Amino acid sequence: MEGGGSGEDRLIARFFRPIAGAGALGLRDDAALLSPPEGCDLVLTKDAVVAGVHFFADDAPASVARKALRVNLSDLAAKGAAPLGALLALALPKGTGEAWVAAFADGLGADAVAFGCPILGGDTVATPGPVTITITALGAVPKGGFVPRTGARPGQAILVSGTIGDAALGLKLRQGPNDVPFGDLDAEQRGHLLDRYLHPQPRLALAPVLRAYAAAAMDVSDGLAGDAAKMLAASGCGGVIEARRVPLSAAAARVTAGRAELLRTALTGGDDYEILACVPHAAVPAFTAEAARAGVPVTLIGETRGGEGLDVIGPDGVALDLGSGSFSHF
Amino acid sequence: MEGGGSGEDRLIARFFRPIAGAGALGLRDDAALLSPPEGCDLVLTKDAVVAGVHFFADDAPASVARKALRVNLSDLAAKGAAPLGALLALALPKGTGEAWVAAFADGLGADAVAFGCPILGGDTVATPGPVTITITALGAVPKGGFVPRTGARPGQAILVSGTIGDAALGLKLRQGPNDVPFGDLDAEQRGHLLDRYLHPQPRLALAPVLRAYAAAAMDVSDGLAGDAAKMLAASGCGGVIEARRVPLSAAAARVTAGRAELLRTALTGGDDYEILACVPHAAVPAFTAEAARAGVPVTLIGETRGGEGLDVIGPDGVALDLGSGSFSHF
Repeated sequence: MEGGGSGEDRLIARFFRPIAGAGALGLRDDAALLSPPEGCDLVLTKDAVVAGVHFFADDAPASVARKALRVNLSDLAAKGAAPLGALLALALPKGTGEAWVAAFADGLGADAVAFGCPILGGDTVATPGPVTITITALGAVPKGGFVPRTGARPGQAILVSGTIGDAALGLKLRQGPNDVPFGDLDAEQRGHLLDRYLHPQPRLALAPVLRAYAAAAMDVSDGLAGDAAKMLAASGCGGVIEARRVPLSAAAARVTAGRAELLRTALTGGDDYEILACVPHAAVPAFTAEAARAGVPVTLIGETRGGEGLDVIGPDGVALDLGSGSFSHF
Repeated sequence: MEGGGSGEDRLIARFFRPIAGAGALGLRDDAALLSPPEGCDLVLTKDAVVAGVHFFADDAPASVARKALRVNLSDLAAKGAAPLGALLALALPKGTGEAWVAAFADGLGADAVAFGCPILGGDTVATPGPVTITITALGAVPKGGFVPRTGARPGQAILVSGTIGDAALGLKLRQGPNDVPFGDLDAEQRGHLLDRYLHPQPRLALAPVLRAYAAAAMDVSDGLAGDAAKMLAASGCGGVIEARRVPLSAAAARVTAGRAELLRTALTGGDDYEILACVPHAAVPAFTAEAARAGVPVTLIGETRGGEGLDVIGPDGVALDLGSGSFSHF
């Protein structure tokens, strides 16, 4: 008997061994091996995405792979961590073509290189359900450098990176490409929104700046308003965000202008993968300057307060009623 | 707006926060925090299990949780590692009752305590497919202590822990409780086989003994014959296993006696979660004695050789034809 193994082994050998990092031991062992850097704490995160729930079953497999990895890298970035590596569990319906797996592995391998996050191992299984991808990412922070969600105190500035709402609007555009509001957009703006839904940009460059200045941070994955409310609740304080200060791309600004419902989508929709941070006011200029130097624009959008609860003030100065303020699959 | 969050947040708060370890930060953050022990390498493993593929949809949820964790702990044990913690991704069909989730969390929490493997974090998502559980376990070995799958050399002893084939026979018993061979078994023996399928016993007590003596090791998850062939191929050598030496429980011995097909099931079926190790002959007495002292019986079943390929010699002295020798879902 030869040790060539099962269909799973052949799939791994053919498509995943070429993209595996050194600690993966050629994906020939039961487990991966990693020497953690000296003087560091480990940061661990794990996100699962399911076809038909978190992505479209007909999305390009390379895009699916990239998003699955990037949502985890976004968590690392928010905690101030640099990636060390990732493990993949891939559940595939029977009959998934090799072309799909090949393109998935290509996309994952390209991002592993681009973000310095080697694929260390994982598992490939069959499922009677939809494609399900679970990635665990490991990162490192200098000891004590973890940026918690719980560190905000009353009277701090609330800032957010990049622009908000593009991904949620991109999803709406995808679901209704002929809907009236999107008629205002040119091809480039449409492409921007669609791409932001498909390809989040983990803000890893912001990690050291967060470690230096942020009292609290988290990544915005389930909607700005809801996630901000969560961070404030976890920190035991309240706060206010002014909708007019929330940074919008040109495309998002155009479709939300005068459309309260789409502004609500931008403020509460998911998949931004930007970083929300609370920073003492005195540190805001340095934080903003260093973030810009790292290539990540950050914008002051509000302030923490004593008490509890988050108010989101609308463009007309009246607090918006945003319901739960975030997206939930449950 | 309050920061109570989504259905997922409530599920996590109610059922998983009570079982979370210290590094989980109360499951209130984007990520978990872990200080790796000084002077250690990290060992990382990730296994996914799917209802209807790796377990029965009507299995007790506590059993499902235990198996999902234990198959990962078995990988750590085979590499000589002690558990540091685990992350869970749980994909649940809509309408999964809270009683299911509560029982699942109870089972997971009990095993996290029993095996010293705190739950550090994870993700809970909805799926239109079956329950899918992915666990990533982290372990530690003293630097350089990782026991590889690739270290076997010709002329070493092949040993296996515990007994082989119980789980695969337990699965057959479950699928055909009235099949003739199982008529020979008493209630206790039937219970033994069924339990071995449901509740693997990760051999964590063997980890330090493997580090001290084993040139190569792996856990037997996809069938003894196929996994042994894999380890030999990874090590670049061949070998022979004598079926008559393979340790069988009283129940397995009874149902396989004179039934070549069931002996094949025992030798090639999955879910043993025992440890297969290659040990230099001179070290076999010490390895065996220390394993016994650790509460884990190990049995000499064969020998590595030069060349390639694994021969499994049947009870009549003739090499068995076992096909691929292992179980595959693909």
